[in-house]
Amino acid sequence: MNFTEWLPYIQQRTETALQAALPAAALTPNRLHEAMRYAVLGGGKRIRALLAHAAGALTHAAQKQLDFAACAVELIHAYSLIHDDMPCMDDDKLRRGKPTVHVEYDEATALLAGDALQTLAFQVLAEHPVSATAAGQIEIIQTLALAAGSHGMAGGQAIDIAAVGREMTREELELMHLRKTGALIRAAILIGAHAGEGVNETRRRHLDTYAKRIGLLYQVVDDILDAEADTATLGKTAGKDADHGKPTYVSLLGAADARRFAEDLLTEACDALAPLGERAIRLRDLADYIAHRAF
Amino acid sequence: MNFTEWLPYIQQRTETALQAALPAAALTPNRLHEAMRYAVLGGGKRIRALLAHAAGALTHAAQKQLDFAACAVELIHAYSLIHDDMPCMDDDKLRRGKPTVHVEYDEATALLAGDALQTLAFQVLAEHPVSATAAGQIEIIQTLALAAGSHGMAGGQAIDIAAVGREMTREELELMHLRKTGALIRAAILIGAHAGEGVNETRRRHLDTYAKRIGLLYQVVDDILDAEADTATLGKTAGKDADHGKPTYVSLLGAADARRFAEDLLTEACDALAPLGERAIRLRDLADYIAHRAF
Repeated sequence: MNFTEWLPYIQQRTETALQAALPAAALTPNRLHEAMRYAVLGGGKRIRALLAHAAGALTHAAQKQLDFAACAVELIHAYSLIHDDMPCMDDDKLRRGKPTVHVEYDEATALLAGDALQTLAFQVLAEHPVSATAAGQIEIIQTLALAAGSHGMAGGQAIDIAAVGREMTREELELMHLRKTGALIRAAILIGAHAGEGVNETRRRHLDTYAKRIGLLYQVVDDILDAEADTATLGKTAGKDADHGKPTYVSLLGAADARRFAEDLLTEACDALAPLGERAIRLRDLADYIAHRAF
Repeated sequence: MNFTEWLPYIQQRTETALQAALPAAALTPNRLHEAMRYAVLGGGKRIRALLAHAAGALTHAAQKQLDFAACAVELIHAYSLIHDDMPCMDDDKLRRGKPTVHVEYDEATALLAGDALQTLAFQVLAEHPVSATAAGQIEIIQTLALAAGSHGMAGGQAIDIAAVGREMTREELELMHLRKTGALIRAAILIGAHAGEGVNETRRRHLDTYAKRIGLLYQVVDDILDAEADTATLGKTAGKDADHGKPTYVSLLGAADARRFAEDLLTEACDALAPLGERAIRLRDLADYIAHRAF
Protein backbone atom coordinates (compact mmCIF):
# COMPACT_ATOMS: atom_id res chain seq x y z
CA MET A 1 0.00 0.00 0.00
CA ASN A 2 1.47 3.38 -0.90
CA PHE A 3 1.18 6.41 1.36
CA THR A 4 -1.79 8.00 -0.40
CA GLU A 5 -3.73 4.75 0.02
CA TRP A 6 -2.48 4.14 3.56
CA LEU A 7 -3.59 7.55 4.81
CA PRO A 8 -7.38 7.17 4.28
CA TYR A 9 -7.12 3.46 5.19
CA ILE A 10 -5.78 4.26 8.68
CA GLN A 11 -8.14 7.20 9.06
CA GLN A 12 -11.05 4.88 8.30
CA ARG A 13 -9.78 2.20 10.71
CA THR A 14 -9.51 4.86 13.40
CA GLU A 15 -13.02 6.11 12.71
CA THR A 16 -14.33 2.56 13.04
CA ALA A 17 -12.40 1.98 16.27
CA LEU A 18 -13.70 5.25 17.73
CA GLN A 19 -17.26 4.38 16.68
CA ALA A 20 -16.96 1.12 18.59
CA ALA A 21 -15.31 2.64 21.66
CA LEU A 22 -17.82 5.47 22.10
CA PRO A 23 -21.06 4.76 23.98
CA ALA A 24 -24.13 4.57 21.74
CA ALA A 25 -26.17 7.78 21.66
CA ALA A 26 -29.23 5.69 22.54
CA LEU A 27 -27.78 4.91 25.98
CA THR A 28 -28.60 7.07 29.03
CA PRO A 29 -27.55 9.84 29.46
CA ASN A 30 -28.28 10.35 25.74
CA ARG A 31 -27.36 13.99 25.47
CA LEU A 32 -23.94 13.38 27.00
CA HIS A 33 -23.28 10.41 24.74
CA GLU A 34 -24.48 12.35 21.69
CA ALA A 35 -22.13 15.19 22.55
CA MET A 36 -19.21 12.79 22.99
CA ARG A 37 -19.87 11.26 19.57
CA TYR A 38 -20.42 14.68 17.99
CA ALA A 39 -17.04 15.85 19.25
CA VAL A 40 -15.08 12.79 18.21
CA LEU A 41 -16.57 11.35 15.02
CA GLY A 42 -16.58 12.51 11.44
CA GLY A 43 -13.80 15.00 11.52
CA GLY A 44 -10.19 15.62 12.21
CA LYS A 45 -7.10 14.60 10.33
CA ARG A 46 -6.29 11.88 12.89
CA ILE A 47 -2.62 12.88 12.80
CA ARG A 48 -2.03 11.24 16.19
CA ALA A 49 -3.66 7.99 15.10
CA LEU A 50 -1.58 7.99 11.92
CA LEU A 51 1.60 8.54 13.93
CA ALA A 52 0.73 5.70 16.32
CA HIS A 53 0.16 3.32 13.40
CA ALA A 54 3.34 4.49 11.64
CA ALA A 55 5.41 3.96 14.80
CA GLY A 56 3.77 0.58 15.34
CA ALA A 57 4.84 -0.49 11.85
CA LEU A 58 8.40 0.05 13.06
CA THR A 59 8.01 -2.55 15.83
CA HIS A 60 5.74 -5.02 13.98
CA ALA A 61 2.73 -4.16 16.13
CA ALA A 62 -0.58 -5.72 15.14
CA GLN A 63 -2.96 -3.22 13.55
CA LYS A 64 -5.77 -4.30 15.85
CA GLN A 65 -3.71 -3.34 18.89
CA LEU A 66 -2.71 -0.10 17.22
CA ASP A 67 -6.38 0.72 16.68
CA PHE A 68 -6.90 0.80 20.46
CA ALA A 69 -3.77 2.85 21.02
CA ALA A 70 -4.75 5.29 18.25
CA CYS A 71 -8.26 5.47 19.64
CA ALA A 72 -7.10 6.37 23.14
CA VAL A 73 -4.82 9.14 21.90
CA GLU A 74 -7.53 10.61 19.66
CA LEU A 75 -10.00 10.53 22.58
CA ILE A 76 -7.59 12.55 24.73
CA HIS A 77 -7.09 14.95 21.84
CA ALA A 78 -10.85 15.35 21.32
CA TYR A 79 -11.46 16.00 25.02
CA SER A 80 -8.76 18.68 25.06
CA LEU A 81 -10.34 20.44 22.07
CA ILE A 82 -13.78 20.54 23.72
CA HIS A 83 -12.42 22.07 26.91
CA ASP A 84 -10.03 24.37 25.03
CA ASP A 85 -12.93 25.80 23.01
CA MET A 86 -15.05 26.60 26.09
CA PRO A 87 -15.86 30.23 26.95
CA CYS A 88 -13.51 30.29 29.95
CA MET A 89 -10.64 29.12 27.71
CA ASP A 90 -10.39 30.16 24.03
CA ASP A 91 -14.13 30.77 23.63
CA ASP A 92 -14.25 29.37 20.12
CA LYS A 93 -17.39 28.80 18.10
CA LEU A 94 -16.10 26.62 15.26
CA ARG A 95 -14.14 23.37 15.21
CA ARG A 96 -13.61 20.93 12.34
CA GLY A 97 -16.11 22.99 10.33
CA LYS A 98 -18.90 22.50 12.88
CA PRO A 99 -20.15 24.50 15.88
CA THR A 100 -18.08 23.67 18.97
CA VAL A 101 -19.65 21.34 21.56
CA HIS A 102 -20.70 24.04 24.04
CA VAL A 103 -22.37 25.94 21.17
CA GLU A 104 -24.13 22.90 19.72
CA TYR A 105 -25.10 21.56 23.18
CA ASP A 106 -24.35 23.66 26.26
CA GLU A 107 -21.43 24.40 28.53
CA ALA A 108 -22.24 21.82 31.19
CA THR A 109 -22.57 19.09 28.57
CA ALA A 110 -19.30 20.19 26.95
CA LEU A 111 -17.53 20.05 30.30
CA LEU A 112 -18.85 16.57 31.10
CA ALA A 113 -18.31 15.25 27.56
CA GLY A 114 -14.65 16.29 27.76
CA ASP A 115 -14.34 14.71 31.19
CA ALA A 116 -15.94 11.45 30.06
CA LEU A 117 -13.81 11.27 26.91
CA GLN A 118 -10.66 11.51 28.98
CA THR A 119 -11.89 8.68 31.18
CA LEU A 120 -12.82 6.65 28.10
CA ALA A 121 -9.28 6.93 26.74
CA PHE A 122 -7.91 5.18 29.83
CA GLN A 123 -10.78 2.72 29.81
CA VAL A 124 -9.95 1.68 26.23
CA LEU A 125 -6.31 1.10 27.16
CA ALA A 126 -7.26 -0.89 30.26
CA GLU A 127 -9.95 -2.99 28.57
CA HIS A 128 -8.04 -4.11 25.49
CA PRO A 129 -4.73 -5.91 25.00
CA VAL A 130 -2.90 -2.91 23.48
CA SER A 131 0.39 -4.64 24.14
CA ALA A 132 1.53 -8.27 24.10
CA THR A 133 2.15 -8.17 27.87
CA ALA A 134 0.29 -6.68 30.83
CA ALA A 135 3.47 -4.82 31.79
CA GLY A 136 3.59 -3.27 28.30
CA GLN A 137 -0.03 -2.28 28.63
CA ILE A 138 0.66 -0.52 31.92
CA GLU A 139 3.61 1.29 30.35
CA ILE A 140 1.33 2.53 27.59
CA ILE A 141 -1.22 3.81 30.13
CA GLN A 142 1.58 5.53 32.01
CA THR A 143 2.92 7.15 28.83
CA LEU A 144 -0.49 8.53 27.96
CA ALA A 145 -1.13 9.84 31.48
CA LEU A 146 2.23 11.60 31.63
CA ALA A 147 1.62 13.22 28.25
CA ALA A 148 -1.91 14.38 29.05
CA GLY A 149 -1.43 15.71 32.59
CA SER A 150 -0.09 18.85 34.22
CA HIS A 151 3.47 18.18 33.03
CA GLY A 152 2.18 17.65 29.51
CA MET A 153 -0.87 18.79 27.58
CA ALA A 154 -2.96 20.26 30.43
CA GLY A 155 0.12 22.06 31.71
CA GLY A 156 0.80 23.46 28.23
CA GLN A 157 -2.73 24.81 28.08
CA ALA A 158 -2.26 26.49 31.46
CA ILE A 159 0.93 28.15 30.17
CA ASP A 160 -0.98 29.14 27.04
CA ILE A 161 -3.80 30.94 28.85
CA ALA A 162 -1.27 32.67 31.12
CA ALA A 163 0.55 33.92 28.00
CA VAL A 164 -2.33 35.91 26.51
CA GLY A 165 -1.29 39.51 25.93
CA ARG A 166 2.23 38.86 27.23
CA GLU A 167 5.58 38.91 25.43
CA MET A 168 7.16 35.49 25.12
CA THR A 169 10.69 34.53 24.14
CA ARG A 170 11.18 31.89 21.51
CA GLU A 171 12.36 29.48 24.22
CA GLU A 172 9.20 30.05 26.24
CA LEU A 173 7.03 29.56 23.17
CA GLU A 174 8.83 26.32 22.35
CA LEU A 175 8.48 25.05 25.91
CA MET A 176 4.76 25.80 25.84
CA HIS A 177 4.20 24.01 22.54
CA LEU A 178 6.32 21.02 23.50
CA ARG A 179 3.74 20.49 26.25
CA LYS A 180 0.51 21.74 24.75
CA THR A 181 0.72 19.90 21.42
CA GLY A 182 4.07 18.14 21.48
CA ALA A 183 3.53 15.90 24.49
CA LEU A 184 0.50 14.07 23.07
CA ILE A 185 2.02 13.76 19.58
CA ARG A 186 5.16 12.30 21.14
CA ALA A 187 3.03 9.95 23.23
CA ALA A 188 1.17 8.74 20.12
CA ILE A 189 4.49 7.74 18.58
CA LEU A 190 5.92 6.09 21.71
CA ILE A 191 2.67 4.25 22.43
CA GLY A 192 2.52 2.98 18.85
CA ALA A 193 6.07 1.66 19.20
CA HIS A 194 5.29 0.12 22.64
CA ALA A 195 2.37 -1.78 21.13
CA GLY A 196 4.81 -3.88 19.13
CA GLU A 197 8.08 -5.59 20.00
CA GLY A 198 9.39 -2.51 21.70
CA VAL A 199 12.59 -0.70 20.81
CA ASN A 200 16.04 -0.80 22.34
CA GLU A 201 17.46 2.28 24.03
CA THR A 202 19.35 3.61 20.98
CA ARG A 203 16.38 3.25 18.64
CA ARG A 204 14.11 4.71 21.28
CA ARG A 205 16.32 7.79 21.48
CA HIS A 206 16.15 8.28 17.72
CA LEU A 207 12.40 7.80 17.76
CA ASP A 208 12.06 10.28 20.59
CA THR A 209 14.08 12.90 18.69
CA TYR A 210 11.77 12.38 15.72
CA ALA A 211 8.73 12.62 18.01
CA LYS A 212 9.82 15.90 19.59
CA ARG A 213 10.61 17.50 16.20
CA ILE A 214 7.26 16.40 14.80
CA GLY A 215 5.39 17.82 17.79
CA LEU A 216 6.97 21.20 17.23
CA LEU A 217 6.71 20.98 13.44
CA TYR A 218 2.99 20.38 13.74
CA GLN A 219 2.57 23.55 15.79
CA VAL A 220 4.76 25.76 13.60
CA VAL A 221 2.79 24.71 10.52
CA ASP A 222 -0.41 25.30 12.48
CA ASP A 223 0.69 28.84 13.21
CA ILE A 224 1.60 29.43 9.54
CA LEU A 225 -1.74 28.08 8.34
CA ASP A 226 -3.58 30.06 11.00
CA ALA A 227 -1.96 33.25 9.75
CA GLU A 228 -2.41 32.52 6.04
CA ALA A 229 -5.56 30.51 5.51
CA ASP A 230 -9.17 31.53 5.92
CA THR A 231 -11.71 30.08 8.31
CA ALA A 232 -13.51 28.00 5.67
CA THR A 233 -10.31 26.16 4.70
CA LEU A 234 -9.20 25.60 8.30
CA GLY A 235 -12.56 24.47 9.63
CA LYS A 236 -11.81 26.50 12.73
CA THR A 237 -11.61 30.23 13.34
CA ALA A 238 -8.57 31.56 11.47
CA GLY A 239 -6.17 34.08 12.97
CA LYS A 240 -7.64 33.63 16.44
CA ASP A 241 -4.33 33.24 18.25
CA ALA A 242 -3.06 36.55 16.89
CA ASP A 243 -6.45 38.15 17.64
CA HIS A 244 -6.28 36.89 21.23
CA GLY A 245 -2.85 38.46 21.61
CA LYS A 246 -1.26 35.03 21.83
CA PRO A 247 2.32 34.70 20.66
CA THR A 248 2.76 32.43 17.61
CA TYR A 249 5.78 31.39 15.56
CA VAL A 250 4.62 33.73 12.81
CA SER A 251 4.21 36.70 15.16
CA LEU A 252 7.59 35.96 16.72
CA LEU A 253 9.72 35.03 13.69
CA GLY A 254 7.76 36.38 10.73
CA ALA A 255 6.20 34.16 8.07
CA ALA A 256 9.37 33.47 6.07
CA ASP A 257 11.49 32.47 9.08
CA ALA A 258 8.65 30.40 10.51
CA ARG A 259 8.50 28.52 7.19
CA ARG A 260 12.30 28.02 7.26
CA PHE A 261 12.09 26.77 10.85
CA ALA A 262 9.47 24.23 9.76
CA GLU A 263 11.76 22.96 7.00
CA ASP A 264 14.65 22.63 9.50
CA LEU A 265 12.46 20.64 11.86
CA LEU A 266 11.40 18.39 8.99
CA THR A 267 15.02 17.73 8.07
CA GLU A 268 15.95 16.98 11.69
CA ALA A 269 12.96 14.65 12.10
CA CYS A 270 13.90 12.70 8.97
CA ASP A 271 17.58 12.57 9.96
CA ALA A 272 16.56 10.97 13.25
CA LEU A 273 14.71 8.26 11.32
CA ALA A 274 17.66 7.36 9.10
CA PRO A 275 19.19 4.82 11.56
CA LEU A 276 15.80 3.13 12.02
CA GLY A 277 15.78 1.45 8.63
CA GLU A 278 13.15 0.81 6.01
CA ARG A 279 10.23 0.21 8.37
CA ALA A 280 10.40 3.91 9.29
CA ILE A 281 9.04 4.83 5.88
CA ARG A 282 5.54 5.69 7.13
CA LEU A 283 6.98 7.98 9.78
CA ARG A 284 9.03 9.74 7.08
CA ASP A 285 6.01 10.11 4.80
CA LEU A 286 3.99 11.49 7.70
CA ALA A 287 6.65 14.06 8.57
CA ASP A 288 6.48 15.30 5.02
CA TYR A 289 2.68 15.29 5.09
CA ILE A 290 2.58 17.28 8.34
CA ALA A 291 5.10 19.82 7.04
CA HIS A 292 3.28 20.42 3.77
CA ARG A 293 -0.39 19.98 4.69
CA ALA A 294 -2.75 22.73 3.54
CA PHE A 295 -5.15 22.64 6.53
CA MET B 1 -6.19 -0.05 66.68
CA ASN B 2 -9.83 0.74 67.40
CA PHE B 3 -12.05 2.56 64.90
CA THR B 4 -11.69 6.03 66.43
CA GLU B 5 -7.90 5.69 66.17
CA TRP B 6 -8.00 4.07 62.74
CA LEU B 7 -10.07 6.85 61.19
CA PRO B 8 -7.59 9.74 61.62
CA TYR B 9 -4.71 7.33 60.98
CA ILE B 10 -5.99 6.44 57.49
CA GLN B 11 -7.00 10.03 56.81
CA GLN B 12 -3.44 11.11 57.64
CA ARG B 13 -1.92 8.34 55.47
CA THR B 14 -4.13 9.46 52.61
CA GLU B 15 -3.14 13.10 53.06
CA THR B 16 0.52 12.08 52.95
CA ALA B 17 0.00 9.95 49.84
CA LEU B 18 -1.86 12.78 48.11
CA GLN B 19 0.88 15.26 49.08
CA ALA B 20 3.43 12.98 47.43
CA ALA B 21 1.36 12.29 44.31
CA LEU B 22 0.53 15.93 43.59
CA PRO B 23 3.05 18.01 41.64
CA ALA B 24 4.91 20.57 43.78
CA ALA B 25 3.48 24.09 43.55
CA ALA B 26 6.99 25.30 42.71
CA LEU B 27 6.90 23.42 39.38
CA THR B 28 5.74 25.11 36.16
CA PRO B 29 2.89 25.83 35.57
CA ASN B 30 2.78 26.98 39.20
CA ARG B 31 -0.74 28.36 39.25
CA LEU B 32 -2.17 25.11 37.90
CA HIS B 33 -0.22 23.03 40.39
CA GLU B 34 -1.21 25.35 43.24
CA ALA B 35 -4.87 25.01 42.26
CA MET B 36 -4.58 21.21 42.11
CA ARG B 37 -3.09 21.12 45.62
CA TYR B 38 -5.62 23.66 46.91
CA ALA B 39 -8.48 21.49 45.70
CA VAL B 40 -7.17 18.20 47.04
CA LEU B 41 -5.23 18.82 50.25
CA GLY B 42 -6.32 19.79 53.75
CA GLY B 43 -9.96 18.95 53.60
CA GLY B 44 -12.52 16.31 52.97
CA LYS B 45 -13.59 13.35 55.04
CA ARG B 46 -11.72 10.93 52.74
CA ILE B 47 -14.67 8.53 52.88
CA ARG B 48 -13.55 6.85 49.65
CA ALA B 49 -10.02 6.38 50.92
CA LEU B 50 -11.34 4.93 54.17
CA LEU B 51 -13.56 2.52 52.23
CA ALA B 52 -10.65 1.42 50.03
CA HIS B 53 -8.51 0.71 53.10
CA ALA B 54 -11.35 -1.06 54.89
CA ALA B 55 -12.02 -3.28 51.86
CA GLY B 56 -8.30 -3.94 51.49
CA ALA B 57 -8.17 -5.16 55.09
CA LEU B 58 -10.63 -7.84 53.99
CA THR B 59 -8.19 -9.22 51.41
CA HIS B 60 -4.94 -8.67 53.33
CA ALA B 61 -3.81 -5.89 51.00
CA ALA B 62 -0.65 -4.02 51.98
CA GLN B 63 -1.37 -0.54 53.29
CA LYS B 64 1.24 0.97 50.97
CA GLN B 65 -0.65 -0.38 47.95
CA LEU B 66 -3.92 0.80 49.42
CA ASP B 67 -2.47 4.29 49.77
CA PHE B 68 -2.09 4.47 45.98
CA ALA B 69 -5.56 3.07 45.39
CA ALA B 70 -7.07 5.49 47.92
CA CYS B 71 -5.12 8.35 46.41
CA ALA B 72 -6.40 7.65 42.89
CA VAL B 73 -10.03 7.50 44.01
CA GLU B 74 -9.72 10.71 46.04
CA LEU B 75 -8.12 12.46 43.04
CA ILE B 76 -11.08 11.51 40.85
CA HIS B 77 -13.44 12.70 43.57
CA ALA B 78 -11.58 16.02 43.90
CA TYR B 79 -11.62 16.61 40.14
CA SER B 80 -15.37 15.97 40.01
CA LEU B 81 -16.00 18.48 42.81
CA ILE B 82 -14.01 21.22 41.03
CA HIS B 83 -15.93 20.76 37.78
CA ASP B 84 -19.25 20.29 39.58
CA ASP B 85 -18.81 23.61 41.37
CA MET B 86 -18.11 25.58 38.17
CA PRO B 87 -20.57 28.27 37.02
CA CYS B 88 -21.88 26.18 34.11
CA MET B 89 -22.67 23.33 36.52
CA ASP B 90 -23.78 23.98 40.15
CA ASP B 91 -22.13 27.42 40.35
CA ASP B 92 -21.07 26.96 43.94
CA LYS B 93 -18.84 29.33 45.89
CA LEU B 94 -17.94 27.24 48.92
CA ARG B 95 -16.43 23.77 49.30
CA ARG B 96 -14.86 22.14 52.34
CA GLY B 97 -15.16 25.50 54.09
CA LYS B 98 -13.04 27.33 51.49
CA PRO B 99 -13.83 29.27 48.30
CA THR B 100 -14.23 26.88 45.37
CA VAL B 101 -11.33 26.61 42.89
CA HIS B 102 -12.84 28.85 40.20
CA VAL B 103 -13.52 31.51 42.85
CA GLU B 104 -10.07 31.30 44.45
CA TYR B 105 -8.29 31.07 41.06
CA ASP B 106 -10.31 31.44 37.85
CA GLU B 107 -12.53 29.31 35.65
CA ALA B 108 -9.86 28.29 33.17
CA THR B 109 -7.55 27.18 35.97
CA ALA B 110 -10.40 25.27 37.62
CA LEU B 111 -11.19 23.50 34.35
CA LEU B 112 -7.56 22.51 33.77
CA ALA B 113 -6.94 21.58 37.41
CA GLY B 114 -9.88 19.18 37.26
CA ASP B 115 -8.65 17.77 33.97
CA ALA B 116 -5.13 17.27 35.29
CA LEU B 117 -6.35 15.67 38.53
CA GLN B 118 -8.29 13.09 36.57
CA THR B 119 -5.18 12.28 34.54
CA LEU B 120 -3.11 12.10 37.72
CA ALA B 121 -5.45 9.49 39.18
CA PHE B 122 -4.71 7.14 36.29
CA GLN B 123 -1.03 8.04 36.38
CA VAL B 124 -0.82 7.04 40.05
CA LEU B 125 -2.43 3.67 39.31
CA ALA B 126 -0.13 3.06 36.32
CA GLU B 127 3.09 4.15 38.05
CA HIS B 128 2.75 2.20 41.26
CA PRO B 129 2.26 -1.49 42.04
CA VAL B 130 -1.27 -1.13 43.38
CA SER B 131 -1.76 -4.85 42.97
CA ALA B 132 0.52 -7.87 43.33
CA THR B 133 0.22 -8.59 39.59
CA ALA B 134 0.21 -6.46 36.45
CA ALA B 135 -3.13 -8.04 35.50
CA GLY B 136 -4.57 -7.00 38.87
CA GLN B 137 -3.25 -3.49 38.33
CA ILE B 138 -4.98 -3.29 34.95
CA GLU B 139 -8.22 -4.53 36.49
CA ILE B 140 -8.00 -1.74 39.07
CA ILE B 141 -7.47 0.88 36.35
CA GLN B 142 -10.43 -0.53 34.45
CA THR B 143 -12.64 -0.47 37.55
CA LEU B 144 -11.81 3.18 38.18
CA ALA B 145 -12.36 4.18 34.55
CA LEU B 146 -15.75 2.47 34.40
CA ALA B 147 -16.84 4.14 37.63
CA ALA B 148 -15.70 7.63 36.60
CA GLY B 149 -16.92 7.75 33.00
CA SER B 150 -20.19 8.34 31.20
CA HIS B 151 -21.76 5.15 32.56
CA GLY B 152 -20.71 6.15 36.07
CA MET B 153 -19.94 9.43 37.79
CA ALA B 154 -19.81 11.77 34.77
CA GLY B 155 -23.02 10.21 33.48
CA GLY B 156 -24.67 10.72 36.86
CA GLN B 157 -23.73 14.38 36.78
CA ALA B 158 -25.25 14.71 33.31
CA ILE B 159 -28.50 13.19 34.59
CA ASP B 160 -28.29 15.54 37.58
CA ILE B 161 -28.08 18.73 35.50
CA ALA B 162 -30.87 17.50 33.23
CA ALA B 163 -33.06 16.97 36.33
CA VAL B 164 -33.06 20.58 37.53
CA GLY B 165 -36.61 21.86 37.91
CA ARG B 166 -38.07 18.54 36.79
CA GLU B 167 -40.13 15.97 38.69
CA MET B 168 -38.28 12.72 39.32
CA THR B 169 -39.57 9.38 40.52
CA ARG B 170 -37.83 7.64 43.37
CA GLU B 171 -36.44 5.10 40.87
CA GLU B 172 -34.98 7.86 38.71
CA LEU B 173 -33.45 9.56 41.73
CA GLU B 174 -31.91 6.29 42.84
CA LEU B 175 -30.52 5.58 39.38
CA MET B 176 -28.97 9.04 39.24
CA HIS B 177 -27.31 8.71 42.62
CA LEU B 178 -26.09 5.19 41.97
CA ARG B 179 -24.05 6.76 39.17
CA LYS B 180 -23.24 10.22 40.45
CA THR B 181 -22.00 9.26 43.92
CA GLY B 182 -22.50 5.51 44.12
CA ALA B 183 -20.25 4.42 41.26
CA LEU B 184 -17.07 5.92 42.69
CA ILE B 185 -17.84 4.78 46.24
CA ARG B 186 -18.42 1.27 44.92
CA ALA B 187 -15.18 1.48 42.92
CA ALA B 188 -13.24 2.53 46.04
CA ILE B 189 -14.42 -0.63 47.79
CA LEU B 190 -13.78 -2.98 44.85
CA ILE B 191 -10.37 -1.45 44.13
CA GLY B 192 -9.39 -1.80 47.78
CA ALA B 193 -10.36 -5.47 47.67
CA HIS B 194 -8.53 -5.98 44.32
CA ALA B 195 -5.35 -4.59 45.85
CA GLY B 196 -5.13 -7.64 48.07
CA GLU B 197 -5.61 -11.35 47.46
CA GLY B 198 -8.81 -10.77 45.57
CA VAL B 199 -12.17 -12.26 46.48
CA ASN B 200 -14.05 -15.22 45.11
CA GLU B 201 -17.31 -14.74 43.25
CA THR B 202 -19.60 -15.26 46.27
CA ARG B 203 -17.68 -12.91 48.51
CA ARG B 204 -17.45 -10.39 45.70
CA ARG B 205 -21.22 -10.41 45.35
CA HIS B 206 -21.67 -9.73 49.06
CA LEU B 207 -19.09 -6.97 48.91
CA ASP B 208 -20.81 -5.46 45.90
CA THR B 209 -24.18 -5.45 47.68
CA TYR B 210 -22.53 -3.65 50.57
CA ALA B 211 -20.87 -1.20 48.15
CA LYS B 212 -24.12 -0.31 46.40
CA ARG B 213 -25.99 0.22 49.68
CA ILE B 214 -23.21 2.39 51.05
CA GLY B 215 -23.16 4.52 47.89
CA LEU B 216 -26.85 5.23 48.26
CA LEU B 217 -26.67 5.59 52.04
CA TYR B 218 -24.00 8.23 51.63
CA GLN B 219 -26.26 10.25 49.34
CA VAL B 220 -29.40 9.91 51.44
CA VAL B 221 -27.51 11.14 54.50
CA ASP B 222 -26.06 13.95 52.38
CA ASP B 223 -29.57 15.03 51.45
CA ILE B 224 -30.72 14.89 55.08
CA LEU B 225 -27.72 16.94 56.25
CA ASP B 226 -28.16 19.37 53.38
CA ALA B 227 -31.75 19.98 54.46
CA GLU B 228 -31.03 20.20 58.20
CA ALA B 229 -27.58 21.65 58.74
CA ASP B 230 -26.30 25.16 58.13
CA THR B 231 -23.55 26.21 55.74
CA ALA B 232 -20.89 26.64 58.44
CA THR B 233 -21.28 23.06 59.67
CA LEU B 234 -21.35 21.55 56.17
CA GLY B 235 -18.42 23.54 54.79
CA LYS B 236 -20.44 23.86 51.59
CA THR B 237 -23.55 25.82 50.74
CA ALA B 238 -26.47 24.25 52.62
CA GLY B 239 -29.84 23.67 50.99
CA LYS B 240 -28.49 24.32 47.51
CA ASP B 241 -30.04 21.26 45.88
CA ALA B 242 -33.50 22.25 47.03
CA ASP B 243 -32.81 25.88 46.04
CA HIS B 244 -31.74 24.74 42.57
CA GLY B 245 -35.00 22.83 42.19
CA LYS B 246 -33.14 19.52 42.32
CA PRO B 247 -35.00 16.54 43.65
CA THR B 248 -33.53 15.10 46.87
CA TYR B 249 -34.50 12.19 49.11
CA VAL B 250 -35.84 14.68 51.64
CA SER B 251 -37.94 16.56 49.07
CA LEU B 252 -39.22 13.25 47.68
CA LEU B 253 -39.81 11.22 50.87
CA GLY B 254 -39.88 13.82 53.62
CA ALA B 255 -37.27 14.00 56.39
CA ALA B 256 -38.62 11.18 58.56
CA ASP B 257 -38.93 8.66 55.72
CA ALA B 258 -35.53 9.66 54.34
CA ARG B 259 -34.03 8.95 57.76
CA ARG B 260 -35.84 5.58 57.87
CA PHE B 261 -34.58 4.75 54.38
CA ALA B 262 -31.03 5.49 55.56
CA GLU B 263 -31.44 3.10 58.48
CA ASP B 264 -32.75 0.39 56.14
CA LEU B 265 -29.77 0.84 53.84
CA LEU B 266 -27.43 0.61 56.82
CA THR B 267 -29.03 -2.64 57.92
CA GLU B 268 -28.82 -4.11 54.41
CA ALA B 269 -25.19 -3.05 54.06
CA CYS B 270 -24.28 -4.70 57.37
CA ASP B 271 -26.27 -7.84 56.51
CA ALA B 272 -24.23 -8.18 53.32
CA LEU B 273 -21.04 -8.09 55.37
CA ALA B 274 -22.09 -10.86 57.76
CA PRO B 275 -20.82 -13.75 55.57
CA LEU B 276 -17.47 -12.00 55.09
CA GLY B 277 -16.22 -12.72 58.57
CA GLU B 278 -14.26 -10.75 61.13
CA ARG B 279 -12.00 -8.90 58.73
CA ALA B 280 -15.05 -6.95 57.54
CA ILE B 281 -15.16 -5.07 60.84
CA ARG B 282 -13.78 -1.82 59.38
CA LEU B 283 -16.39 -1.87 56.63
CA ARG B 284 -19.10 -2.32 59.27
CA ASP B 285 -17.73 0.52 61.39
CA LEU B 286 -17.58 2.74 58.33
CA ALA B 287 -21.18 2.00 57.37
CA ASP B 288 -22.22 3.12 60.82
CA TYR B 289 -20.01 6.19 60.60
CA ILE B 290 -21.45 7.18 57.21
CA ALA B 291 -25.02 6.69 58.42
CA HIS B 292 -24.57 8.76 61.58
CA ARG B 293 -22.08 11.43 60.54
CA ALA B 294 -22.96 15.02 61.39
CA PHE B 295 -21.39 16.68 58.31
